[in-house]
Amino acid sequence: MPRIDGRATDQLRPVRITPNFTRNANGSALIECGETRVICTASVEDKVPPFLRDTEQGWLTAEYGMLPGSSPSRISRRAGGRTQEIQRLVGRSMRAVVDLDRLGSRTIWLDCDVIQADGGTRTASITGAYVALSLAIARLQSAGELDNDPRRTSVAAISVGIVDGTVMLDLCYEEDSRADVDMNIVMTGDGRFIEVQGTAEAAPFSAAEMSQMTEMATVAIADLGKMQEEAIAAGLLKD
Amino acid sequence: MPRIDGRATDQLRPVRITPNFTRNANGSALIECGETRVICTASVEDKVPPFLRDTEQGWLTAEYGMLPGSSPSRISRRAGGRTQEIQRLVGRSMRAVVDLDRLGSRTIWLDCDVIQADGGTRTASITGAYVALSLAIARLQSAGELDNDPRRTSVAAISVGIVDGTVMLDLCYEEDSRADVDMNIVMTGDGRFIEVQGTAEAAPFSAAEMSQMTEMATVAIADLGKMQEEAIAAGLLKD
Amino acid sequence: MPRIDGRATDQLRPVRITPNFTRNANGSALIECGETRVICTASVEDKVPPFLRDTEQGWLTAEYGMLPGSSPSRISRRAGGRTQEIQRLVGRSMRAVVDLDRLGSRTIWLDCDVIQADGGTRTASITGAYVALSLAIARLQSAGELDNDPRRTSVAAISVGIVDGTVMLDLCYEEDSRADVDMNIVMTGDGRFIEVQGTAEAAPFSAAEMSQMTEMATVAIADLGKMQEEAIAAGLLKD
Amino acid sequence: MPRIDGRATDQLRPVRITPNFTRNANGSALIECGETRVICTASVEDKVPPFLRDTEQGWLTAEYGMLPGSSPSRISRRAGGRTQEIQRLVGRSMRAVVDLDRLGSRTIWLDCDVIQADGGTRTASITGAYVALSLAIARLQSAGELDNDPRRTSVAAISVGIVDGTVMLDLCYEEDSRADVDMNIVMTGDGRFIEVQGTAEAAPFSAAEMSQMTEMATVAIADLGKMQEEAIAAGLLKD
Amino acid sequence: MPRIDGRATDQLRPVRITPNFTRNANGSALIECGETRVICTASVEDKVPPFLRDTEQGWLTAEYGMLPGSSPSRISRRAGGRTQEIQRLVGRSMRAVVDLDRLGSRTIWLDCDVIQADGGTRTASITGAYVALSLAIARLQSAGELDNDPRRTSVAAISVGIVDGTVMLDLCYEEDSRADVDMNIVMTGDGRFIEVQGTAEAAPFSAAEMSQMTEMATVAIADLGKMQEEAIAAGLLKD
Amino acid sequence: MPRIDGRATDQLRPVRITPNFTRNANGSALIECGETRVICTASVEDKVPPFLRDTEQGWLTAEYGMLPGSSPSRISRRAGGRTQEIQRLVGRSMRAVVDLDRLGSRTIWLDCDVIQADGGTRTASITGAYVALSLAIARLQSAGELDNDPRRTSVAAISVGIVDGTVMLDLCYEEDSRADVDMNIVMTGDGRFIEVQGTAEAAPFSAAEMSQMTEMATVAIADLGKMQEEAIAAGLLKD
Repeated sequence: MPRIDGRATDQLRPVRITPNFTRNANGSALIECGETRVICTASVEDKVPPFLRDTEQGWLTAEYGMLPGSSPSRISRRAGGRTQEIQRLVGRSMRAVVDLDRLGSRTIWLDCDVIQADGGTRTASITGAYVALSLAIARLQSAGELDNDPRRTSVAAISVGIVDGTVMLDLCYEEDSRADVDMNIVMTGDGRFIEVQGTAEAAPFSAAEMSQMTEMATVAIADLGKMQEEAIAAGLLKD
Repeated sequence: MPRIDGRATDQLRPVRITPNFTRNANGSALIECGETRVICTASVEDKVPPFLRDTEQGWLTAEYGMLPGSSPSRISRRAGGRTQEIQRLVGRSMRAVVDLDRLGSRTIWLDCDVIQADGGTRTASITGAYVALSLAIARLQSAGELDNDPRRTSVAAISVGIVDGTVMLDLCYEEDSRADVDMNIVMTGDGRFIEVQGTAEAAPFSAAEMSQMTEMATVAIADLGKMQEEAIAAGLLKD
Repeated sequence: MPRIDGRATDQLRPVRITPNFTRNANGSALIECGETRVICTASVEDKVPPFLRDTEQGWLTAEYGMLPGSSPSRISRRAGGRTQEIQRLVGRSMRAVVDLDRLGSRTIWLDCDVIQADGGTRTASITGAYVALSLAIARLQSAGELDNDPRRTSVAAISVGIVDGTVMLDLCYEEDSRADVDMNIVMTGDGRFIEVQGTAEAAPFSAAEMSQMTEMATVAIADLGKMQEEAIAAGLLKD
Repeated sequence: MPRIDGRATDQLRPVRITPNFTRNANGSALIECGETRVICTASVEDKVPPFLRDTEQGWLTAEYGMLPGSSPSRISRRAGGRTQEIQRLVGRSMRAVVDLDRLGSRTIWLDCDVIQADGGTRTASITGAYVALSLAIARLQSAGELDNDPRRTSVAAISVGIVDGTVMLDLCYEEDSRADVDMNIVMTGDGRFIEVQGTAEAAPFSAAEMSQMTEMATVAIADLGKMQEEAIAAGLLKD
Repeated sequence: MPRIDGRATDQLRPVRITPNFTRNANGSALIECGETRVICTASVEDKVPPFLRDTEQGWLTAEYGMLPGSSPSRISRRAGGRTQEIQRLVGRSMRAVVDLDRLGSRTIWLDCDVIQADGGTRTASITGAYVALSLAIARLQSAGELDNDPRRTSVAAISVGIVDGTVMLDLCYEEDSRADVDMNIVMTGDGRFIEVQGTAEAAPFSAAEMSQMTEMATVAIADLGKMQEEAIAAGLLKD
Repeated sequence: MPRIDGRATDQLRPVRITPNFTRNANGSALIECGETRVICTASVEDKVPPFLRDTEQGWLTAEYGMLPGSSPSRISRRAGGRTQEIQRLVGRSMRAVVDLDRLGSRTIWLDCDVIQADGGTRTASITGAYVALSLAIARLQSAGELDNDPRRTSVAAISVGIVDGTVMLDLCYEEDSRADVDMNIVMTGDGRFIEVQGTAEAAPFSAAEMSQMTEMATVAIADLGKMQEEAIAAGLLKD
């Protein structure tokens, strides 16, 4: 059964990552996955939260927001439970690939702001935030403020689900709203899992379906990893 | 490698479910999983949230809390992001097994309050909430306020993780705090997944490890299902 | 005129105090007064609020909550004015019998969480909190963290009221909701007043009625004091 | 032992009540008790809170505030627990003397705002609020919006306490801050109790001391009742 | 066209400034402009906000409130956007005439509380706050806590607007609610502008009308400056 | 004296308006004024706020936000007083040019989100919001949901100030932070004032300086009006 936009079941929407999309943050990127568009920025602050004072460790934290006009029905600015759940996910995903002991006594804030929403905003946020983070880290190194690269590996994310009984990659909003199962997968550049979050919206799913979904996501995340690398390289070229 | 408390890697902690633990709620249960203890109550309210007005549909929602003294270091009553994430999970899990169209125009509130915490509070909450919910539904039926049983199947949950490189079932707090991977699995009584939430706290995990974890959880959840049935039957006997 | 449950006008409901009800807090007790049940915990924290910094003095503070399912109609978790009024009362009552100068530079948090409500929750909280507090203090002494006992005397509380023109002790919910006058009395173990809070819900009361109420409470509080002593002794036996 | 300001132990500070102090509220009064000054206003609103909809009953509610500059050390505008406790007391006291069934389907808001604080602000608020309320009710009657007077009796309040072992009436701030016992008493015009709130700040008090305090307050409240009547009459004369 | 109260278009309402209206704040004044009445207090606190720590500079900040009964329809105590806008204006106006470097390491809080509202409350607040501030500063100097006067000049404010096509000074509430244009002007004692805030509520205004409004305000503010001086002198006489 | 970026004192920064920047809102535009970039969206909702129910009138309201990474030092998402002041200004400015009686019983939300800040964000928001609003209105007309155009005229805004004694147009951040006077002017397309907000940050300003500022702004706003028209026309071409 063909998809709404004619894609194959295991095909990503067109991805475009624009590094240095804004200039005031230490690192930034606009990530576009089909019609979903997210501005990701990394802002460096020379202090750490209270629980890390008197340690050598740094901190990474994330915030996520949707511009009110990003969605067909306007979204309130008041952050609810969904917002908190997503920003905790983005923060954990970034911390999983960075050695906080080597970050120095500073905080990096990763802000992911959705300017247009069409499904997959949380996974696009993770993929884009890694680019913004990498640009900020590279600039700290260039400026001599960081001796070595605290990143252990890269991280990217994608959604996968079951729609009308078929396993499909990278659901757009319309597919997502009809999906029986919705799964978000965060993986490292070398193919291991950081987060797996699968929810049966309507019909519970079997172990076989779960395997099929994770395999499809694994291939896609490897592809996203290459796009991230290119965007980071392009972003640093202009420095 | 033996576990802290001598259990086998695939062994549950002792589980005890006390139905009708409190008498003011429509259904209630105390669930004890090792040293973790959670009071679960189901309260029926004869109205629905605004977005369901003028429909025939009912609603199920959950709240989760930890008593301040439930943990070795006192916990503030102010609900943070973790609390919201858990209560959304409990609510989704219950809604996944109940046909809201057959619930009538009412709301069932499921409250899970941890009185003693030793790991696995969110999965114990789900397992216990299902008992409280079932008791409340059975009483609505007995009272003639509900024609038929809106439950489609049962639901229970368990944690599984990787500690010191070994996959283990039902982590207690000390194991959980050392775990490389922490996974919570919510399944139906007939062995299908409702939620899978796996997080690599330290080291990312492979596809093979993921399979091992989900298989171990599947067996345990079937066992929990039997205990839930017994508790519900015992609770209704006294009515 | 006989009471709903057949008690004499000056008779307490059955009281049961279970020390060490939970194990993570430094001291804990479950207090049951008829169908009213409250979990009381005492948690010790090794710091004091800002206004006591740079002094030698310690601090005692209380919080009070009702589990949502503790009442026939579900109670919201959002603390309102009544909650604050009660927790201020519990805190003042505990501070009245403890010499804060001899507590050391630490805070003891007393948490009173109602799991089943049937009238008299604030007075049960005070009576139970004193047991949790005493257990925590005794353990600080045993552990050598406290030289001497900072308690000056004991404290307990009871409600008394006027229902259908008759003065009655220890009102249950149904009596309380019909009462013309509702009075809460907090006294020391040696029979002096710490707090007297009397409210005419419907009909104002005379000076003679006030005397009758305070006398009835005085006798009951002496009885509660003995039960507290026994519970504290039993709780420490198991250490 | 003479008092700071030379008063006898059972003597009120000079009281002045200025009716119609502001003109936009339906009733208003400035009450001055020594250096304590409170603006009391009664505002009538033609609707009732949700829990009274579809009844014939009216509602009375109170709010209390202190202007930031009313106290020697500036007070934050953020209402804390003390504020809520006081405004609940003022509201209950007013409702105790008004027949809400005869108030019509409207709400009367009583606002007590302290512009200068020197002890006894809550009792002055009650005494003054009754004047503002009475003026508003009289005007509703004059305007033909209310058939008969819903007031059953009058209400006033005073503080009494034990300072340096002596029972004293109407404590000013300096006395209050040194008091062993602080008691607020709210009574009707015909000498019955509406509220008794006694707190041992330092030393618990005996039954004999309690009697002495309530007797002293009874006399003073009768005097305040006369001043209220005069102020109400004077306020209506100018209409 | 004559005005509601018979004033000329360029005439102020009767102004009365009562210095030392309350005694607990370091400086205070009641300002009455027609029926508008505002209590202004200046409270000195011996610390500065975090962003000024480790500097020699002091700070001035303002808060603004309306007593609930100050307006014909009762006003909620919850501060909204309008309140914040006004208190930021009052704060900026005061800081514009005070040399914060010469204020010492302290904060002066200016509180403006409207007890009766009839238009022009924000401009009355500025004019009155300057009197309270000046009294507080003079007392700091008298007490030897301040070497020299940190005020550079005086400040006062007035409203002006266009009603029914006519430019008018000092609008009362009824005029204000019909006005096409509403302008608030804050000026120094020597005739220069600190703030100009003009809003076309209904019909946009021309450059010629703007000139006419600023000229009318300039004359009025000079008059207010004289009244401020007299009030400050009278207030200090009694010290 | 030449400006930082070489502009003449009365010269605008390069302005670019991209209509239809996002597609989910009913109207949208990205406005760039030099390095300042703001996304403006207009979202139509088919209901009105409570105070307009049972009338035929529609409503326009605005919200303003800065993305955390939009500024060199990261900005918190928590909206403070400045945010509220700006969004009230944007809302008033839009309402001043739209006939709410002809808007129908609907609300248009105007959201202005700064993605890069370099001075003049509030004036850019107004200029851009008018474009988003016009696109949304035109589409309501095309869709037959609105009979006629409720806009009476156009609206745009610009900042002007005094820097180092010289009056200058359209201050960038660096100029703004050194400015003695900062003025924001909102005008209609036909050259009349809607809002004038001038603040003396350091040195008060004279009447002559005020005239010079308003004249410079008048010319610039006429230019912005032409760019708005072109952007609206281009945006509608693609429909």
